[in-house]
Amino acid sequence: MKVGVVGIGHGKFGKREDVTVQELAFEPFKEALDDAGLERKDIDASVIGSSPEYHKQRSISGVIAEYLGMNPKMTYLTEAACASSSAALHNAVAYIKAGMYDVIAVLGVQKMTELTTPEILALMGRVGDVQWESVFGTTFPGYYAMYARRHMYDFGTTEEQMAKVAVKNHFHGVQNPNAMFQKEISLEKALASKPVATPLKIFDCCGNADGAACLIVAGESKAKEISDTPVWLKGMGAATASMSVLRRKELNSLPSSVEASKQAFKQAGVEPKDLSFAEVHDCFTIAEILAYEDIGLAKKGEGTKLIDEGQTYRDGNMPVNVDGGLKAKGHPVGATGASMAVEAVKQLRGDAGERQVDGAEIALTHNVGGIGQYCYVNIYSR
Amino acid sequence: MKVGVVGIGHGKFGKREDVTVQELAFEPFKEALDDAGLERKDIDASVIGSSPEYHKQRSISGVIAEYLGMNPKMTYLTEAACASSSAALHNAVAYIKAGMYDVIAVLGVQKMTELTTPEILALMGRVGDVQWESVFGTTFPGYYAMYARRHMYDFGTTEEQMAKVAVKNHFHGVQNPNAMFQKEISLEKALASKPVATPLKIFDCCGNADGAACLIVAGESKAKEISDTPVWLKGMGAATASMSVLRRKELNSLPSSVEASKQAFKQAGVEPKDLSFAEVHDCFTIAEILAYEDIGLAKKGEGTKLIDEGQTYRDGNMPVNVDGGLKAKGHPVGATGASMAVEAVKQLRGDAGERQVDGAEIALTHNVGGIGQYCYVNIYSR
Repeated sequence: MKVGVVGIGHGKFGKREDVTVQELAFEPFKEALDDAGLERKDIDASVIGSSPEYHKQRSISGVIAEYLGMNPKMTYLTEAACASSSAALHNAVAYIKAGMYDVIAVLGVQKMTELTTPEILALMGRVGDVQWESVFGTTFPGYYAMYARRHMYDFGTTEEQMAKVAVKNHFHGVQNPNAMFQKEISLEKALASKPVATPLKIFDCCGNADGAACLIVAGESKAKEISDTPVWLKGMGAATASMSVLRRKELNSLPSSVEASKQAFKQAGVEPKDLSFAEVHDCFTIAEILAYEDIGLAKKGEGTKLIDEGQTYRDGNMPVNVDGGLKAKGHPVGATGASMAVEAVKQLRGDAGERQVDGAEIALTHNVGGIGQYCYVNIYSR
Repeated sequence: MKVGVVGIGHGKFGKREDVTVQELAFEPFKEALDDAGLERKDIDASVIGSSPEYHKQRSISGVIAEYLGMNPKMTYLTEAACASSSAALHNAVAYIKAGMYDVIAVLGVQKMTELTTPEILALMGRVGDVQWESVFGTTFPGYYAMYARRHMYDFGTTEEQMAKVAVKNHFHGVQNPNAMFQKEISLEKALASKPVATPLKIFDCCGNADGAACLIVAGESKAKEISDTPVWLKGMGAATASMSVLRRKELNSLPSSVEASKQAFKQAGVEPKDLSFAEVHDCFTIAEILAYEDIGLAKKGEGTKLIDEGQTYRDGNMPVNVDGGLKAKGHPVGATGASMAVEAVKQLRGDAGERQVDGAEIALTHNVGGIGQYCYVNIYSR
């Protein structure tokens, strides 16, 4: 059974001191219901993707379901670090294919900015193995700095090439009203920004944000009944890799990303060259370059060519992160997967306004959890 | 498609200072593989049910999958408070019915005792709405004390009747080598124990524990291929209710429990009287009495009759919590749902040894999340 997205909603990403986590979730949920022309009673279950430890409120799916007025229908939370709401979407597709529920709301939601940056870094570090790695002080920027160093060593990648990713994604972010940073930056500014974990600088890093996004999904016949423009999930890949860097064979690629991409392309029956555009997991600029290669948009070691040649700009051959990516849009970890999916649907519907990719027909989303211990890749088409 | 359990594993519950969370998960995983006669390569995905905030290690499904040697196969975590691994099992059934995976390992795992009891109580309090309820100091025993008071007021339930639940479950726990407390208690001792949240005393409360349990599930044909004694999931119910007590219509029943039970009985095509035994969520003694009524083992207000008449002892008409329940077995929150399922399978196979319920044919498990904001009810048969 084909499964389609029939409703989308996306809140403003950024520092959202104006809302509780329930209120944050409500915004895109309401928008998605209105978009689909549905009421709450039409939704059979909700799946919440989030990384729980950032919130003072525990077990958020319960309080969110209550706030959304979704009792007594099933809800629960999925967690796969930064890929938590991609896991939620993957679950929802399974429930629909299984015939257990007909229409499901998938919500990615995260409030991060109640904590200070050092607190966030400490929390993120504990995603690493607390017995063997994070105890030595590993942080997320530190892990990705290792990837960057290795890519530089193996393929001659430069800090300037990484900075160009930031410049592109900020350029795209200007056209996204929901982005945390709607502001262009210059290559010089990016290169002169303060080091975070050398060679990564402030502008190589995405922003910690609050945010939420929602998808309403349904099986083929129901989706056609609800929507004139359903967007179909043509291929879905889900894979994992070791968390421990010491168990990785190489540091210039994320094996979960390679594996999940393969699965998704195979299921969808398309190849990288068939994509109209991609939303990839640019938590750091080096991560976008790794994604080009792991997905197969570029050969290994040649990801930097795409950015040097400007091919991944909106008007290039293979636009990437046309909504600003994690870099400019902000990265509310649990909401990011759902946010990517919303952008894919919006573009494939031709509803992306100023940032519309001309003639978009096939989209790919690539959502990495942690430093690559999880990866979900989805391929969508009209 | 019918889905069956083909492998089970259950670790020792209690204070497990000897293991990390990965090692804790490994024990029942290995046991379940051996039980099913499978190897890791035969498992297509793993779903981890847990309540994350108790652990120093974040995003545990990644490090657990790595430790179990399950990379690059999909894993993620489900959270629904104390029903987290019932949510994981529910997910796994969906994935199998959907045809997305053939054989899935469901792991419930929790390390709680790294924290102090006041820390655990504070964490549990934050499952309540942090804006409107837990800020006033609500704790889990406090919530259940309200349920107890209301039941006493409405139906004349006594502290002695509640204590009898504890006496029964400790009596059963003696025969469970994996139980945290393998020790009988007297009614006098239970009644004389220190108050926690009046009318609930120490012996009305389950024990915070570390623990893990594992189920390997597969679709009908695969299950028959793997096992000569698959146990089938005949009916599954999943429901929610408001977290906020202020939005509940009544406090002498858990509406999610009533709803999930209805769904499960309907799907299984059986009635409460058809059950051979039940495993119910006795996080507090009053919770077991509520469960009798909400599931339909007794009429509303008459749950105490079952305990007064000894009907829920192993040799009674309707044995309940023959493995000691949360009360004597301990309640490692994320592991409890999987633990109940393991007991159901063990009993239906006739493998429960000393605590075997004679002629067990149909079993029910009832797993509540939090104070009733989630509930999963499953019905199993050979």
